[in-house]
Amino acid sequence: MRIAVIGSGSVGCLYGARLALAGHDVHFLMRRDLEAVRRDGLTVRSCDGDFHLAARVYGCPEEIGPADLVICALKTTALDAARALISPCVGPKTDVLALMNGLGVEDQFADWFPPEQVFGGMAFVCINRGEPGVVHHYGYGRVVIGHQRDDAARARQIAGLFTAAGFDATVAPSLLRARWEKLAWNIPFSTLAVSAGAVTTGQIMEDDGLRDLARALMVETIAGGNAELAEGDRIDTGSLVEKMFANTATMGDYRPSMLIDYVNKLPLEVESILGEPVRRAIAHGVAVPNMAMQYRLVRFLDRLNRGLVRLEE
Amino acid sequence: MRIAVIGSGSVGCLYGARLALAGHDVHFLMRRDLEAVRRDGLTVRSCDGDFHLAARVYGCPEEIGPADLVICALKTTALDAARALISPCVGPKTDVLALMNGLGVEDQFADWFPPEQVFGGMAFVCINRGEPGVVHHYGYGRVVIGHQRDDAARARQIAGLFTAAGFDATVAPSLLRARWEKLAWNIPFSTLAVSAGAVTTGQIMEDDGLRDLARALMVETIAGGNAELAEGDRIDTGSLVEKMFANTATMGDYRPSMLIDYVNKLPLEVESILGEPVRRAIAHGVAVPNMAMQYRLVRFLDRLNRGLVRLEE
Repeated sequence: MRIAVIGSGSVGCLYGARLALAGHDVHFLMRRDLEAVRRDGLTVRSCDGDFHLAARVYGCPEEIGPADLVICALKTTALDAARALISPCVGPKTDVLALMNGLGVEDQFADWFPPEQVFGGMAFVCINRGEPGVVHHYGYGRVVIGHQRDDAARARQIAGLFTAAGFDATVAPSLLRARWEKLAWNIPFSTLAVSAGAVTTGQIMEDDGLRDLARALMVETIAGGNAELAEGDRIDTGSLVEKMFANTATMGDYRPSMLIDYVNKLPLEVESILGEPVRRAIAHGVAVPNMAMQYRLVRFLDRLNRGLVRLEE
Repeated sequence: MRIAVIGSGSVGCLYGARLALAGHDVHFLMRRDLEAVRRDGLTVRSCDGDFHLAARVYGCPEEIGPADLVICALKTTALDAARALISPCVGPKTDVLALMNGLGVEDQFADWFPPEQVFGGMAFVCINRGEPGVVHHYGYGRVVIGHQRDDAARARQIAGLFTAAGFDATVAPSLLRARWEKLAWNIPFSTLAVSAGAVTTGQIMEDDGLRDLARALMVETIAGGNAELAEGDRIDTGSLVEKMFANTATMGDYRPSMLIDYVNKLPLEVESILGEPVRRAIAHGVAVPNMAMQYRLVRFLDRLNRGLVRLEE
């Protein structure tokens, strides 16, 4: 299968490289590490075993051209640019998988491309970029794949590619529910990691007040999601909260990607991870005071961190 | 009048020094700047005119002994030590004025000393310490004085001392109301200045999200206060919010004392300014989600800032 990876950060590189090892013809659109990978190839230092790939990398999507599958792994902060980057790789039968964070991404894609060809993917993976051309994969790797119209058979085809590449891959019966379930972790832990002063999930879990706050944010997120999910798709709050806190307790000092971006003074995915969920919850009449406050704080901290706030005189 | 100033930071020094210039016999309990002031005296660089005072300074309260009036200007983070520092200066007729921030201080004093001799004072003043022995007074200086039992005649006697020393001084008919009114500014602006990434009131006012958050915090604070104020003492929310936002708009890039403490890695007055108000509001059944979240964030940031949070591994 001819696959184009649009946005080859750590997530795009890991999944794309493993799909290439599994025999697919994978083409990476790359910016930061383009020259390094062109010269030295792509190195993945992975908890599942290190490997090296003479990856086919490109600086513009027109050089890649139409593919059978586009995997878009851009950050949602680059969503405005996504259409122009993806379109040259999309033909009449191309499937487009948004392997991205947050809410509203596939809806946007479904405005640009035929909705039955749009998929959403959630990567549960601990991963960072290293020196140019190197990706560090610390743990996990599971993907959850959903179809924009919740066509399970179609989602299963995409998930099957990841399974064949060695990943744990499951199909989400409801893509919207799966998005909210991932937010139920990201909103408390990724965004508190920033607003509590750049701390790890372990440091959050050890503080009674922050742990209570994480729980309140998680409960609000689930309430927001349930307000727009069909009755049969609704999330059971108690069991998801329990499961996520139990998982997080095993993560140790994990640094969510939002924290890593913050430390590196890169734009945060504030709108897709906080802004859009807050707006949808409020539109459904759900009270989300902690999420709304967190949204305002993190949106400001992101701007302050990148020098976009006027300095004091 | 024989006056003991217990806790001679910038506030204690400014008011004590002006009372001394007005002819009172003022004795300062001092720690950080003791040697410098003993050697060089106390210098106040003030917007109302600079002055110098050969201040009588002491390292322990026993050297001061009983006074007619004790002005306690300790930070509330030192409240545990206050009784032992004040008591040596208290005789049977000594008045004790808590010129301190936050809620619950006079109640604590009224457990230690006769309640009819306990007063609370709120200083509305822009002030900082400078080099040892120097205080910088940038603006304002108004004090509001209340009596623990709301005896207006008694409060007027204390307020009169400040008036005679050249300050704008008024009597609070309800000390509790006056405390909540001051919190209605401190909770939004002092605590957001910390949690929004160490920013000034001007930077808060210029960001739509933070300004909305400040307003929400102010409204919650007033609701918390009104729940425990007698009917005739209740605060009119709309007019206080309007007045405080108008005042804050004139302050420019003001750095609240909580922010200055934070930048200097000193303990923040989290409990008296956030914790106690949150606990009282909740006890009265008032929903204060923004205040409660702010309390948890700022309490953690204070500990993180002072190296009291376990480092990541």
